[in-house]
Amino acid sequence: MSRLTLETRLRAIGAERYHDRHPFHHMLHGGDCNPDQVRAWVINRWAYQAAIPMKDAAFLSRCDDPDMRRAWRSRIEDHDGGVDEGGGIRRWLKLAEAVGLDPEYVASGGGVLPATRFAVDAYIRYVRDAPLLQAVASSLTELFAPKIHEQRIAGLFKHYDFANPDSMSYFQHRLNEAPKDVAYGLAWVLDHADTPEKEDQAAAALRFKTDVLWAQLDALYSAYVTPGSIPPGAWQPGEGMA
Amino acid sequence: MSRLTLETRLRAIGAERYHDRHPFHHMLHGGDCNPDQVRAWVINRWAYQAAIPMKDAAFLSRCDDPDMRRAWRSRIEDHDGGVDEGGGIRRWLKLAEAVGLDPEYVASGGGVLPATRFAVDAYIRYVRDAPLLQAVASSLTELFAPKIHEQRIAGLFKHYDFANPDSMSYFQHRLNEAPKDVAYGLAWVLDHADTPEKEDQAAAALRFKTDVLWAQLDALYSAYVTPGSIPPGAWQPGEGMA
Repeated sequence: MSRLTLETRLRAIGAERYHDRHPFHHMLHGGDCNPDQVRAWVINRWAYQAAIPMKDAAFLSRCDDPDMRRAWRSRIEDHDGGVDEGGGIRRWLKLAEAVGLDPEYVASGGGVLPATRFAVDAYIRYVRDAPLLQAVASSLTELFAPKIHEQRIAGLFKHYDFANPDSMSYFQHRLNEAPKDVAYGLAWVLDHADTPEKEDQAAAALRFKTDVLWAQLDALYSAYVTPGSIPPGAWQPGEGMA
Repeated sequence: MSRLTLETRLRAIGAERYHDRHPFHHMLHGGDCNPDQVRAWVINRWAYQAAIPMKDAAFLSRCDDPDMRRAWRSRIEDHDGGVDEGGGIRRWLKLAEAVGLDPEYVASGGGVLPATRFAVDAYIRYVRDAPLLQAVASSLTELFAPKIHEQRIAGLFKHYDFANPDSMSYFQHRLNEAPKDVAYGLAWVLDHADTPEKEDQAAAALRFKTDVLWAQLDALYSAYVTPGSIPPGAWQPGEGMA
């Protein structure tokens, strides 16, 4: 019963706090973002995307169980991919190109909002330094990812000309990759959160991660929806175009 | 000319400080270790071996160049291997079994000398926190590894009954893996150490790494060659046998 109770509790955190509820995502998926707002999202989300392999490497760097490392490593392989073919982060650059940005500009990390960087860095540090249970539990936003990817694919195809199978290939791949990852992570958390205190820690880790995602959209909204509020050094419309 | 000068300088560090010159290795490769001294080496070297994927993950966790991560990742794949087949660290456990130890005891890390742990932890932290050039340069003891592996394979086959193709498979594999890794790491260091200050930093990193290896053999010698000097908590002959 306790496993089911904890899983229900974790899913409730997603229902309440996952970034599919953020106003910026409502705009994006509903076709209400102008091209520059989409570009700002692509630029900033790159910073998160491109740091995911570093986050998962930080996990491996503190995991002394070889079996767990072997299972976890596929996350890095999915995002970085092979020397020649690349992986998820290279697919993200196809989206950057499709929205009119220079993929090299996006890949350079230029113009990323400081708040995005701080959130991403906080996530990498958390996964490296927090107790292992929390490091694993912080990955469980993947429980909610397939739903947002489906909404996003449908919403972008419906509302934006740049959406095509090539530019959207990042999300299509994630539909297959995320469920495998989350099945492993969820089972591990449910196995190891075997006291009320540890259940609280797992829940806190997932809330932390929802904060990491939400803060990025707050920063985007603040900078690119509210007029005249782009912070110094952040991307300005017209910069970094192909 | 500067690349060649630096490479010569780095190779001189190996000639002077690499652990093939340590008295314990002379004993081991010359057939002068008794079975318990070999076992102590297998147990302690496991702690180093098993931490190498964590060290390389620490490298990936601080490397924001996806191409470099893609090239570096094969080191983790070589040591950890796949979920089912395993890799180098699983092959090391075959050696443990061949010298009469319980591989589960060895894999648990039980009995490892504190000085071994400290050296290994220092290496992981260095690779995570030092400037990137030094993190890369610290891997260049691989320049000297094929020679010691060849000496070891020959010496162990000649002098010890436990040596057979199965128990020695770790070293046989490393003969193929290490040259690929070091070619990448050396070229990167020679490309990036483009000032006298950076050349000094690269040399310092390699000296640091030779210290990491040498300190482990000093600890082994102190505990298991000098009579009556095994520190509290370290492996005692007779423990952890199959």
